[in-house]
Amino acid sequence: MKPFDFKMPSEIIFGEGKIVELPDVVKKFGKRALIITGDHSLYKTGDADRIFSMFEHHELELIVQKTSGEPTVELIDYLCDIHADTKPDVIIGIGGGSVLDTAKAMSAMLKENGSVSDYIETIGSKKICNQPIPCIAVPTTAGTGSEATNNAVIAEYLPRAFKRSLRDDALIPKVAIIDPELTLKCTFPVSANSGIDAFCQLLEAYTSNKANSFTDAITIHGFRLIAKNIVPACTSQADNIEVRSKMAYASLLSGIGIMNSSVTVIHGFASAIGGRYEIPHGAICGAMLLGCTLMNMRKAQKYALNDETSVRFAKLGSILSGIEYDYDKHDVLLRAVTEDIKDITSKLKIQTLSQLGVRREDFYQIVSDTRLNGNPIPLTETDLTEILEMCY
Amino acid sequence: MKPFDFKMPSEIIFGEGKIVELPDVVKKFGKRALIITGDHSLYKTGDADRIFSMFEHHELELIVQKTSGEPTVELIDYLCDIHADTKPDVIIGIGGGSVLDTAKAMSAMLKENGSVSDYIETIGSKKICNQPIPCIAVPTTAGTGSEATNNAVIAEYLPRAFKRSLRDDALIPKVAIIDPELTLKCTFPVSANSGIDAFCQLLEAYTSNKANSFTDAITIHGFRLIAKNIVPACTSQADNIEVRSKMAYASLLSGIGIMNSSVTVIHGFASAIGGRYEIPHGAICGAMLLGCTLMNMRKAQKYALNDETSVRFAKLGSILSGIEYDYDKHDVLLRAVTEDIKDITSKLKIQTLSQLGVRREDFYQIVSDTRLNGNPIPLTETDLTEILEMCY
Repeated sequence: MKPFDFKMPSEIIFGEGKIVELPDVVKKFGKRALIITGDHSLYKTGDADRIFSMFEHHELELIVQKTSGEPTVELIDYLCDIHADTKPDVIIGIGGGSVLDTAKAMSAMLKENGSVSDYIETIGSKKICNQPIPCIAVPTTAGTGSEATNNAVIAEYLPRAFKRSLRDDALIPKVAIIDPELTLKCTFPVSANSGIDAFCQLLEAYTSNKANSFTDAITIHGFRLIAKNIVPACTSQADNIEVRSKMAYASLLSGIGIMNSSVTVIHGFASAIGGRYEIPHGAICGAMLLGCTLMNMRKAQKYALNDETSVRFAKLGSILSGIEYDYDKHDVLLRAVTEDIKDITSKLKIQTLSQLGVRREDFYQIVSDTRLNGNPIPLTETDLTEILEMCY
Repeated sequence: MKPFDFKMPSEIIFGEGKIVELPDVVKKFGKRALIITGDHSLYKTGDADRIFSMFEHHELELIVQKTSGEPTVELIDYLCDIHADTKPDVIIGIGGGSVLDTAKAMSAMLKENGSVSDYIETIGSKKICNQPIPCIAVPTTAGTGSEATNNAVIAEYLPRAFKRSLRDDALIPKVAIIDPELTLKCTFPVSANSGIDAFCQLLEAYTSNKANSFTDAITIHGFRLIAKNIVPACTSQADNIEVRSKMAYASLLSGIGIMNSSVTVIHGFASAIGGRYEIPHGAICGAMLLGCTLMNMRKAQKYALNDETSVRFAKLGSILSGIEYDYDKHDVLLRAVTEDIKDITSKLKIQTLSQLGVRREDFYQIVSDTRLNGNPIPLTETDLTEILEMCY
């Protein structure tokens, strides 16, 4: 058996209405909580008021910090600066992936010196040395799985144009509370972009060369759920709590999956493109999904040595199409992967790179910035350029 | 979707030879480690020397404490007494379930006052208040899954005759290192008794009324592995590292399974009988397995309302027999459960209650001490007595 290391939050609390447990969870860590939220949806839906009012009958001190957009070096440094003396016992992130990543980055950086950019992988050289402030993650979208991972994605658009991770196991939230009710009011574009991100993460973690028995069990389970629920959750069944629950759960599994296996070239492109353009992360993943998958499947079939990869894609094809898996049916199953991804991305109105505003003249730089991560197949710069062309 | 809380060790390190990572893991917690081992196998096989010598080139201080047998109130109190001033930064348990439970109990009790019996569930009324000393669990048998659970089973044979759990989430080991090589030298009875314990735990966690989507994914995955490997691991393939790896892995999954779902009446009997007789825990589980399963399956079929339970047992029958699951084949699949359990327990030379020395005159007291835990079906005292008769 292939060896593996496996990590996840020490405690996961999942279910409709489970947000009511937040004050009791906070008490495990102390009395003073810094809450990070976005600046819009949570307040518009009334969920913010509802959540803050839960704390009224507890002797807890809340400091609320609103934030907006995907975290940048500038934002994290700024927030750590204004909260240098806040000294919370616990940091709570309530929001989408950007908010959770902001909370996770702050939990570490409030205990370190200097700019967060000094600690970002491949950008800085410093390591997180101190135990971060404990972090509780409460996702309000079903997508990034950030509530379960050890990284926070941070961008700098200028001057260095990167989007990379602050990564350390100490960043894994101590507790993740996943209450699917909080995702019910997500709009179509948010549901679609975050849903396709989770879809990619499950597909990537399962087909990555870093997959192991434990991640396989988790990612296949998640992929079964997301294959059935991603389109309904974004369209006809957007107000169905059962469907939203399955998406929230699959998203959690996708986070556990990528942390313990790996992403592949899809997320490699997402970082490279995301550092150059302010396009939502999920939208880029969605745009890259089919092209990257086609390239990986084609290469896997071409090199007999990559039989294992073909088997894995064929098994995903079986889940997507409902056709029972059989070694002799690989052609049919791999075609099903293509057809079903086309169908899903079309129903989610996933845009192409050109529609998203990516410029062809940047292809060279994007290819040069793209890391393959745990991609199952080696890919050349020519392959990567071909993928970009397919997704344009 | 059914809500769930999910917990496990923050870090799991799994694989052949992974024990070499132990010194680096220790360093995460400090410099002074108290190692708890058994008094026999680990030394006889040479593994103890090998493990201790790994620490030579690290600036770490080791204190080794040998122990023997299943932990009792007297033993834990005694060990905490002699180590009252040891003040380790971390406690490492290296051994079977008894050793790991001893280490886990000590990690908590070295920080609390009074006898451990004051803290045992249903026996004492005190709660663990202080953060335990961090514990690293290194199993050398594939069985109890104690490396992943939040409890330590502790007996008192006289005067009160109980076997109950010290249970608190703080008892979950911070790191579990599962190196299947350490299980290669287990003798037949140890492999069989610990293997059947893990088999029961997977079956119980999957059929329990506390099962949820996440535990299902884990327990079904584990049950598939154990169904195929339990007999070879104890017999013809005992020196096959691949087979032993799958057992060690299934055992880990069984621990995660019962902690997050529950055991059922099988482990209910194991506690009641184990408090009265010094019989290895796994041997009792093995003796009770078929009788409890037959009773649960019969009751489930009788009450139409328990259809879900029948489906679960039928799915296990499908895994055991290789017959594809189909709702119309329930009769065949439930028979397969019975036949395959008979076959496995016979090959593992599992003894009956009478062979183990349990006296029929104690049945009344055993029944009265048996908790149903998360059993899927309500059972009366008459049912429990009938189970004991079946297993006698």
